[in-house]
Amino acid sequence: MDQAVAPLNCLAGVKILDLTQFEAGPSCTEALAWLGADVVKVENPEAGEPGRSNFPGRPGADSYYFFEFNANKRSVTINLKTERGVALVKEMAKKADVMIENMAPGTIERLGLGYDAIRAVNPGIIYAQVKGFGEGSPYERNLAFDMIAQACGGTMSVTGEPDGPPCKPGPSLGDTGTGMLMAISILGALYERKTTGRGRRLQVAMQDAMLHYMRFPFQVQAQTGKPAGRGGGRSLAGGVAPSGIFPCAPGGPNDWIYVFARPREHWHRLLKVLGREELIGDPRYETPAARGEHAAEVNEMVAAFTRRHSKHEAMRLIGGAGVPAGAVLDTMELINEPTFEQRGIFQVMDHPSGPFKMPGWPVRFDGKPPKLEPAPLLGEHVREVFGEWLGMSQGDVDALKQEGVI
Amino acid sequence: MDQAVAPLNCLAGVKILDLTQFEAGPSCTEALAWLGADVVKVENPEAGEPGRSNFPGRPGADSYYFFEFNANKRSVTINLKTERGVALVKEMAKKADVMIENMAPGTIERLGLGYDAIRAVNPGIIYAQVKGFGEGSPYERNLAFDMIAQACGGTMSVTGEPDGPPCKPGPSLGDTGTGMLMAISILGALYERKTTGRGRRLQVAMQDAMLHYMRFPFQVQAQTGKPAGRGGGRSLAGGVAPSGIFPCAPGGPNDWIYVFARPREHWHRLLKVLGREELIGDPRYETPAARGEHAAEVNEMVAAFTRRHSKHEAMRLIGGAGVPAGAVLDTMELINEPTFEQRGIFQVMDHPSGPFKMPGWPVRFDGKPPKLEPAPLLGEHVREVFGEWLGMSQGDVDALKQEGVI
Repeated sequence: MDQAVAPLNCLAGVKILDLTQFEAGPSCTEALAWLGADVVKVENPEAGEPGRSNFPGRPGADSYYFFEFNANKRSVTINLKTERGVALVKEMAKKADVMIENMAPGTIERLGLGYDAIRAVNPGIIYAQVKGFGEGSPYERNLAFDMIAQACGGTMSVTGEPDGPPCKPGPSLGDTGTGMLMAISILGALYERKTTGRGRRLQVAMQDAMLHYMRFPFQVQAQTGKPAGRGGGRSLAGGVAPSGIFPCAPGGPNDWIYVFARPREHWHRLLKVLGREELIGDPRYETPAARGEHAAEVNEMVAAFTRRHSKHEAMRLIGGAGVPAGAVLDTMELINEPTFEQRGIFQVMDHPSGPFKMPGWPVRFDGKPPKLEPAPLLGEHVREVFGEWLGMSQGDVDALKQEGVI
Repeated sequence: MDQAVAPLNCLAGVKILDLTQFEAGPSCTEALAWLGADVVKVENPEAGEPGRSNFPGRPGADSYYFFEFNANKRSVTINLKTERGVALVKEMAKKADVMIENMAPGTIERLGLGYDAIRAVNPGIIYAQVKGFGEGSPYERNLAFDMIAQACGGTMSVTGEPDGPPCKPGPSLGDTGTGMLMAISILGALYERKTTGRGRRLQVAMQDAMLHYMRFPFQVQAQTGKPAGRGGGRSLAGGVAPSGIFPCAPGGPNDWIYVFARPREHWHRLLKVLGREELIGDPRYETPAARGEHAAEVNEMVAAFTRRHSKHEAMRLIGGAGVPAGAVLDTMELINEPTFEQRGIFQVMDHPSGPFKMPGWPVRFDGKPPKLEPAPLLGEHVREVFGEWLGMSQGDVDALKQEGVI
C-alpha cells in the first residue's frame, strides 16, 4: 500500500533562523518546516526554550507540548548572554532567508539582535516578530499568552452561555491562530524576495490577529448595532432554526450533535429523517424566518429524534441525508478514529523517547500530507547546522562548547 | 502624517481563479489578495455567491459578511449552467496560477471543472479544494459549515463551562481557520512553482484543519490519559493559580479580566499590585504547585482587587506591572478603540454603498499593514478581467452578456 504521507520540499533551500518559544512563534515556523524549509531553532544551552519543560511529558523527555509545535525542525544551542554567542547568531543571520522571534517586548533589541542590527548584516533578510500587543497600542510593553490575547482580542466575549460569564475558546487561537497569519506573511515576502531580493520587516500582535478570526461576530454587530453576544452551543447568526446542539443518547458530556437546516431543501430532508413528512409544505416551518418564529417547536422536534440515537447514529442519519450535521467529538474520540491515521491527518512521531501520535499538517499535496519528523532534542544538530550553514569543522564546534558559547 | 497603511505587491502578477463561497474559501483568497495577488471571483450572474445575500447588510447592498471576506478582489459573472460558461472558466484556468473552490462534495466535478479537467488544460496550475470532511473519511460526502467543523473537529468539546454543555467558540475557526491553512499551502506551492513550474493538487477538510488548532487540548489528553475537558473562563492547563477570569466593576457581562501569574517573579509583582507584599516569600504561595493547592485563597485575593476596579484600570495596573493580564473586550469596545484605526488594524472600506469599518490584514510589512480595498460589486470587473486575462474586446463581452453566458 502507498504511504499516506510524503516528504514535502516546496521550500527546499529556505533557511529559517528560529528564536521563537512556546507556541505562537513555533507554530509558525513548524508550518514552514512542514512545507520543506530548513528551520533551525536557537535555544539556550541550559534548558532550551521554555516550551520544552513548562508542560508535562514523559519522565526525562521534552514535553508533549514541545513535540507538537516543533516537528520537522533542527536545534542548536547558543548562549545569548555571551558576546561570541550573539556574534554567532549574526553569522547565522547572514546566511538566513528568514529570522523570527517572539520574546517579551524589548528583549531581542537588548540582546543586540533587533531589526536594525540584523538588517545591517543582511539587508535582504525577512525579519519577523510576534508580540502580544502592537506598536502604538496602549499595551505595547505588556506580556501576553494565548489567554490574554483571547481576552483582549474579543474571542472570549463571544464564547460561553448567553447568560453566563465569558469562556475561553479551548483551541489556542491566540497562539496558533497568530502563528498562521505570520506564516502567510513570511511566505508572501519569500515569494516577492525570490524575484526582487528585497528584505522585509514583518510584525504581528496576538491581539490584532484575533480580530481576523472575529469577523463573523463583527458583522453580527454591524447588523444589530450592539456588541456581539454569546451563543452557547449555537452559531451567533440568530433567527435560524434548527441551528444548535441537540442532546444524544446516552447523555454523556459530549453526547451532542450540531444540526443546521437553513435552505428549504435541507429542512425537507430533515423532516423525512425525523419521520415528520406530514410537515413538508406547512407554512409554519417553510422558511428560515418562519422556523425562527417557531424555534421552540422546531428544536423539540429535532431533540425528540436525537435523544433516541447516539451522536454517531444521528450524524449518519441526518448528515447522510444531506443536512449539515456534526457530532461533538472529544479529543479521545478523534485520536482513536482510525481513518485519521489512514489518511495521514494524525501521524506518529518517531521520537527517541518513544512514539507520539499527533496531528500533522492537514493539507494534502497531490493526495498526501507532508511527513511528520521528530521534534529535535536540545542542541541535537549543532555539528550539522554549524557545519552546513557556517562551514565550521568539528573542532570549531568543540571549541565553542568548551568556551560555554553553545 | 504618514498613512498607516500601504498597498502590498508581494504576489504581483499571481492570478487566482476563485470559485469559492461563504467564508472558508473566500478568507483564503482574501489573504492572498491582501498580499497583492489578482484574485478574480467567478459568480453566478443571477445573485452572485450566496455570501452576498445570505446575511444582513444595507438595503439593496451586499451583506456585511460579504464585505469582510472579499476585500481587494475583483468579480466576474459566468453562468456555469451553460456550455460556453464552463468553457470560459477553462480559458481562464489556462491563464491562472491558482484555481480554488469550496463547493459541496462532487459539484465541481459535475460541472466539468474538476482537477483532471483543469490539469488537462493547464498542467502547471495549483488546484485547491476545501471540503467539510476529507477523502477517506466516513463523512466525505457530507455538507459542512463552520459549526459542523467545530463540532466534529473537537473545538466545541473543549469550550464551555466544566459542568455545562459544549459551547461553540464564537470565532469562525472552522471557516477562517481552515482558509488560513490553505493559504499557507498555496503559498508554499507557488514558491516551489516559481522554480520548478510544477503544479499541485491541494485539498483540505475543515474537520481535519480543526485538529491543527486543537494541539493544546491534545497535549492535555497526552498528560492525563482522558479526553480534554472544558475550562470555562480558564486555560485548560490545570494546576496554575491565578489563571482565569476575575470579575471587575461595574459587573457587566464582559467586565472581566484574565490574570495569569506562573513564574515566581510574576507572582511577586502581582502581590505588590494587590497590596499584599507581606506574602512575598510565603511558602504557601511561592511555587505554581503551592498556589495550585491554595487556589481558592489565591483567586479570592485577586478577585478582591479586581472587583474594586474597572477592567481597563485593572489591566493598566496589573499588566503595567509586568504580569500577563487581559481585559475581556467586546466587539463594540474593539471597534471603538481609536489606536486600532491609527495603526491600520481596523480600516474603513470605501464601498459604493457607504463606508464600512472592518479588520484588515493584521500583519505589518515594513511598518504598515496592506491597504484595504472594497469588496467588488457583482460582475463589476467583467470588461477589465476578460480583457486583461483573455484579450476580449468590449464587443466580445457584450455578446457574452446578450447570450446569457455572463
